[in-house]
Amino acid sequence: MLIVKSALLVSCLLGLGAAAQALEALPATPPIPADNPMSAAKIALGQQLYFDPRLSVDGTVSCNSCHNVMSNGTDNRPVSIGVGGQKGGRSAPTVWNAAFLSVQFWDGRAASLEEQAKGPILNPIEMGMPSAAATVARIQSIPGYAHAFAQVFAGKTPVTYDHIAMAIAAYERTLLTPNSAFDRYMKGDKKALSAQALRGMKLVEQTGCTGCHMGPDFAGPALPQGSGFYQKFPTFENNEYVQKYHLKDDMGRYAVTKNVNDQHLWRVPSWRNVALTAPYFHNGSVATLEEAVRVMAKTQLDKSLSDGDVADIVAFLNSLTGEFPIQKMPRLPQTPNTAVTAK
Amino acid sequence: MLIVKSALLVSCLLGLGAAAQALEALPATPPIPADNPMSAAKIALGQQLYFDPRLSVDGTVSCNSCHNVMSNGTDNRPVSIGVGGQKGGRSAPTVWNAAFLSVQFWDGRAASLEEQAKGPILNPIEMGMPSAAATVARIQSIPGYAHAFAQVFAGKTPVTYDHIAMAIAAYERTLLTPNSAFDRYMKGDKKALSAQALRGMKLVEQTGCTGCHMGPDFAGPALPQGSGFYQKFPTFENNEYVQKYHLKDDMGRYAVTKNVNDQHLWRVPSWRNVALTAPYFHNGSVATLEEAVRVMAKTQLDKSLSDGDVADIVAFLNSLTGEFPIQKMPRLPQTPNTAVTAK
Repeated sequence: MLIVKSALLVSCLLGLGAAAQALEALPATPPIPADNPMSAAKIALGQQLYFDPRLSVDGTVSCNSCHNVMSNGTDNRPVSIGVGGQKGGRSAPTVWNAAFLSVQFWDGRAASLEEQAKGPILNPIEMGMPSAAATVARIQSIPGYAHAFAQVFAGKTPVTYDHIAMAIAAYERTLLTPNSAFDRYMKGDKKALSAQALRGMKLVEQTGCTGCHMGPDFAGPALPQGSGFYQKFPTFENNEYVQKYHLKDDMGRYAVTKNVNDQHLWRVPSWRNVALTAPYFHNGSVATLEEAVRVMAKTQLDKSLSDGDVADIVAFLNSLTGEFPIQKMPRLPQTPNTAVTAK
Repeated sequence: MLIVKSALLVSCLLGLGAAAQALEALPATPPIPADNPMSAAKIALGQQLYFDPRLSVDGTVSCNSCHNVMSNGTDNRPVSIGVGGQKGGRSAPTVWNAAFLSVQFWDGRAASLEEQAKGPILNPIEMGMPSAAATVARIQSIPGYAHAFAQVFAGKTPVTYDHIAMAIAAYERTLLTPNSAFDRYMKGDKKALSAQALRGMKLVEQTGCTGCHMGPDFAGPALPQGSGFYQKFPTFENNEYVQKYHLKDDMGRYAVTKNVNDQHLWRVPSWRNVALTAPYFHNGSVATLEEAVRVMAKTQLDKSLSDGDVADIVAFLNSLTGEFPIQKMPRLPQTPNTAVTAK
């Protein structure tokens, strides 16, 4: 299996997008880092933090504002809107099944969910907290949080910025959508996929899509946490889409590494629940899944798909919509007689 | 009982704030209008709508954004922030127990929760939808909603703006916080209130606060739905607070009626969970409950309270914090392959 995956990786990096690949059902559990074990109390704390707008400077934006757990884990917007009505530069990726990704953010700049969680809180156009220390001070000032952190994190300083991120990451590792039609098919229910979805499944293999969109999250082979699986997008520029959808405006991973080889490199995004997460691509420039399929075939594989093929592939991609487990709504700890955000 | 309440009403309108008033535990159920009966399906639909940011023009603001059910039913901000980072003019009242109020909004301009729900969706600085028709068209375009409305509302056009409001109102009528320490005390548990809270309870009666803050929600006597219980605020202007907290900048109910007698008249706000809903007053100008108590005693009753009295009253007000029932998180219906909001 490892050999097969390495072969795929090589073929993919060479842009060959080779033929039939091994497709996988969603595993029951994602990778869990040894230094952040899961516990019910930690997950509950992380859920509170995830839904708490007091992690933003003015108390208006929570993690859930842009990565809506009640929905598909995104905000269905081209780019998200942070504090003060400010627009971000890239489209919010879904939080559902993000635990299977080996790096986070479109450019892979976070090696883990823990590292990812620390970004938006301090980003001035997202949640806008002035500093990690200010964030810690605010959370510490909320008695229910101070108590919960002390229960979950032993030691002299239970509330730290690292611990905030660890609790959020632990909660995020519970956000999995099993039992898609595709998963049921892979587990033996041969009636789970329609004839059209089955045609689509063959097409994504034959066309070369699964040269990159493979693995448990259809986002690349299983790599060690922190190792990203990147592709150049667009690879082929001999088409109308590059300009129409501004596909080269953003330098991608280059903005992180300043390595010219990383220009327009992007973490391969997941296909899980992709039918629900319009609009598409790092800039949210494409409104429908049909168009996204056409654009990808042309820009990545230099292939023009027929309308019938597009419809078949979309039918297959729809079969990757999983079950979203019902959760209890968190109760956010309160600050009697006063409020911790103002303005 | 009716006679007692009428007597209280008269004494209050005369600004007498008479002595010991009948205080009431929270009833088990709020008034339910005959033309909008409750059902499990309607409540579930209303909960989805309440949490759905697609009821705002750009998909960023839901009812819950400013009236946070996971929290105290407010956003703990002086004034709320709507689409595009726009600030409103008044502080968001809590949705918890709002079902007991006979009119809604600070100025009582909505005669029911149904009427209230229709306001913010179309308010350009709140949720900013261009029209009721546009709202209906968007909800209709989401298959899961079209199906749910057809189940809940019989007839040829299940999705209407009225029905959207009716479903939201039905959900809001479930948002009750029973079993506060005060309620347990009123039901016979004489140990439920501390000695300090009991002193505070006597003080709010002796000082005159309960001349207006009476009834199940401490927001006035039980009046027919649509009949508001208003008071002038500030009543006494011979104090530093009027200017310091800009208490006369907003004309209150006058802005609705243009009747000079309604200048600076406000619906008497509830005391239930008031310890959690800082900052205080229609403009959110006062940061702490202690200061709010001082300001009210001075501006409404021309009384200066000692620090000890303030602390006792705050202890009593804290006893009005109820139990917030745990809810299931809704799943928002999806629109595969495309998104219904943009920009």
